[in-house]
Amino acid sequence: MSEHVYKSVELTGSSKVSSDDAIRAAIERASKTIRDIRWFHVIETRGHVENGKVAYWQVTLKIGFTLEG
Amino acid sequence: MSEHVYKSVELTGSSKVSSDDAIRAAIERASKTIRDIRWFHVIETRGHVENGKVAYWQVTLKIGFTLEG
Amino acid sequence: MSEHVYKSVELTGSSKVSSDDAIRAAIERASKTIRDIRWFHVIETRGHVENGKVAYWQVTLKIGFTLEG
Amino acid sequence: MSEHVYKSVELTGSSKVSSDDAIRAAIERASKTIRDIRWFHVIETRGHVENGKVAYWQVTLKIGFTLEG
Amino acid sequence: MSEHVYKSVELTGSSKVSSDDAIRAAIERASKTIRDIRWFHVIETRGHVENGKVAYWQVTLKIGFTLEG
Amino acid sequence: MSEHVYKSVELTGSSKVSSDDAIRAAIERASKTIRDIRWFHVIETRGHVENGKVAYWQVTLKIGFTLEG
Amino acid sequence: MSEHVYKSVELTGSSKVSSDDAIRAAIERASKTIRDIRWFHVIETRGHVENGKVAYWQVTLKIGFTLEG
Amino acid sequence: MSEHVYKSVELTGSSKVSSDDAIRAAIERASKTIRDIRWFHVIETRGHVENGKVAYWQVTLKIGFTLEG
Amino acid sequence: MSEHVYKSVELTGSSKVSSDDAIRAAIERASKTIRDIRWFHVIETRGHVENGKVAYWQVTLKIGFTLEG
Amino acid sequence: MSEHVYKSVELTGSSKVSSDDAIRAAIERASKTIRDIRWFHVIETRGHVENGKVAYWQVTLKIGFTLEG
Amino acid sequence: MSEHVYKSVELTGSSKVSSDDAIRAAIERASKTIRDIRWFHVIETRGHVENGKVAYWQVTLKIGFTLEG
Amino acid sequence: MSEHVYKSVELTGSSKVSSDDAIRAAIERASKTIRDIRWFHVIETRGHVENGKVAYWQVTLKIGFTLEG
Repeated sequence: MSEHVYKSVELTGSSKVSSDDAIRAAIERASKTIRDIRWFHVIETRGHVENGKVAYWQVTLKIGFTLEG
Repeated sequence: MSEHVYKSVELTGSSKVSSDDAIRAAIERASKTIRDIRWFHVIETRGHVENGKVAYWQVTLKIGFTLEG
Repeated sequence: MSEHVYKSVELTGSSKVSSDDAIRAAIERASKTIRDIRWFHVIETRGHVENGKVAYWQVTLKIGFTLEG
Repeated sequence: MSEHVYKSVELTGSSKVSSDDAIRAAIERASKTIRDIRWFHVIETRGHVENGKVAYWQVTLKIGFTLEG
Repeated sequence: MSEHVYKSVELTGSSKVSSDDAIRAAIERASKTIRDIRWFHVIETRGHVENGKVAYWQVTLKIGFTLEG
Repeated sequence: MSEHVYKSVELTGSSKVSSDDAIRAAIERASKTIRDIRWFHVIETRGHVENGKVAYWQVTLKIGFTLEG
Repeated sequence: MSEHVYKSVELTGSSKVSSDDAIRAAIERASKTIRDIRWFHVIETRGHVENGKVAYWQVTLKIGFTLEG
Repeated sequence: MSEHVYKSVELTGSSKVSSDDAIRAAIERASKTIRDIRWFHVIETRGHVENGKVAYWQVTLKIGFTLEG
Repeated sequence: MSEHVYKSVELTGSSKVSSDDAIRAAIERASKTIRDIRWFHVIETRGHVENGKVAYWQVTLKIGFTLEG
Repeated sequence: MSEHVYKSVELTGSSKVSSDDAIRAAIERASKTIRDIRWFHVIETRGHVENGKVAYWQVTLKIGFTLEG
Repeated sequence: MSEHVYKSVELTGSSKVSSDDAIRAAIERASKTIRDIRWFHVIETRGHVENGKVAYWQVTLKIGFTLEG
Repeated sequence: MSEHVYKSVELTGSSKVSSDDAIRAAIERASKTIRDIRWFHVIETRGHVENGKVAYWQVTLKIGFTLEG
């Protein structure tokens, strides 16, 4: 890690399985179009409820990556 | 989703298993008395420690539901 | 719980497995040197990403314990 | 205003018209079941977008009222 | 303290005497209708001023209690 | 805009009409005694309720102006 | 709404007319280049003042949309 | 309370006696030069410590008053 | 006060008597092991409730002191 | 430092040179009209950009001073 | 400044020299690909430490620019 | 960086020279007693004013380091 400039973007991943899995979903989707993702941090954990159960988890993240050149 | 009014209440669920499970516990308990729960978001994640281990997880949520009529 | 004084310290645990596991790692490490840990609460959930996957989870906690005497 | 105790509840009103109208909707709905509403303050202003237009406004409020007796 | 679910509500107590007394007033009023109040925490301390003196203290609290069954 | 020093003050405007109108009221009152008001930003939106209706809107602003000389 | 990933971007709309209109301006401009905008929430409401009047309103929003594929 | 404009200023009172007394000190000092103080709210409670005792309490307040005319 | 370095630690004092007394308890306990405590500020005021009464007050503080040498 | 009352005001200094210099500018301007300035703390650091360079730095401060008599 | 729409992005600049220099680095890198950058504000100042010295400064900014057309 | 546990402590450095220098002072003092300091982040920037000039800068930091074994 040297005198780079980093950018961060805000994404929300969702999952029927778990809050961690919603994070993984956002990171994996982002890595299709962003190279060099370095870190994330969680902004908010939410979810949708149907019939008295958590139907899916939604986690909003900042995802940071190196700006090249 | 139309011109409804929603109410939200603050609950804390606890679980010996995981933080996600503490959320599920709060939602399932709430759904015994509240119809039409729509969403939740996490306010705080805490826990109690006994003998150097997490004894149980406690997650405080806002739970939102449709006010009828 | 009576008229005790409690101290809290800030630790960050890390884990390749899950965010809950990063919390357990911090608590278990802390309990090697701190007796009477009573509670924790989560300050921030972060992680490092390598090759488009979560490489490890990092969770920052406040950990509270009884000050003796 | 004397030595009363007040309670506040959190509601979200929605409106197709304006953000102020979403506030009015929440207050008017609340006043069907709560007597003696005294004040509100805005927690968050959100909205849903359809076809590149604001489809409706959603404003979350704390609504305060006097607890009797 | 086991795998319970807790609810918290927001109240504002007032007192001509002191800020602590405004807290006591809110708790005592709440305990008329809520069983099993366990804890409170202070959200905001305000007051009304008349003739250059504090006329009464107003403290807003979250009050937490066990949801039964 | 050059190497000026700016001051900001906190005002609350009120209006029976709308939240925007409460802002206008505060700015217009302030401009009677402050020259060179440059900007405002909203700190809080509140209101008083009477008979289940919004009786007036109260918006608290920071108002910034150039300090001369 | 299923296991999608959402992105949000931060925009500031401005209007001579009203704060709601500044929001509409931001959403309509964004919808020229972003498909599938789903929601917004307000981050900050500011404005410029000229001659003791609100010259224009500026509202900063997060705007969320579905990431395809 | 009608369509008035209110101003608020930030003061810090200090007292050797108690935190409430530091608030009273700030309000009483302010009322020498400001008419029509209406309310306060607490921003921060601090204190100085000497020889392991609280030497004095310092409480920072916003104090609100009616702008005349 | 010159070019010193200060450290701050987070403690929670408790008292059956009052919130100020919980602060004094934390400072007095801390001064058994920390020399040169200079200031504190309040992070949070909480309490435990038993039988509808405040059983004890718990105040969390940052306590700052000079690092020697 | 004894049982004084302090007031704080919010200023924004600007400088073409550095962020620290913007702070000095605000303090020096304020000291023309305010005696007994005691401390400042930084609220926000901003700046204007022209042609891809920082054209000037703008730092918003709270500035605290003793209220006499 | 008229009825434009502005976008802001979040960048982190780094520098071995100073915190201000880390800001300049982020702005200059951003201006290679973004025209019409207008302002920035600081979100967070961090740094890496090696051998007991600040090895480099890292400052996270919001950078705002005019959306054309 | 692997499955370590990190601790962070809060320090305030001071300097007559600059805000960055106050940070360096805190880090260098801390490195006398703490091995393996890895990062810092700024919590608050304050200063003392004498005779209308900044007499010294005070910056409060979190400093993070690896807990061994």
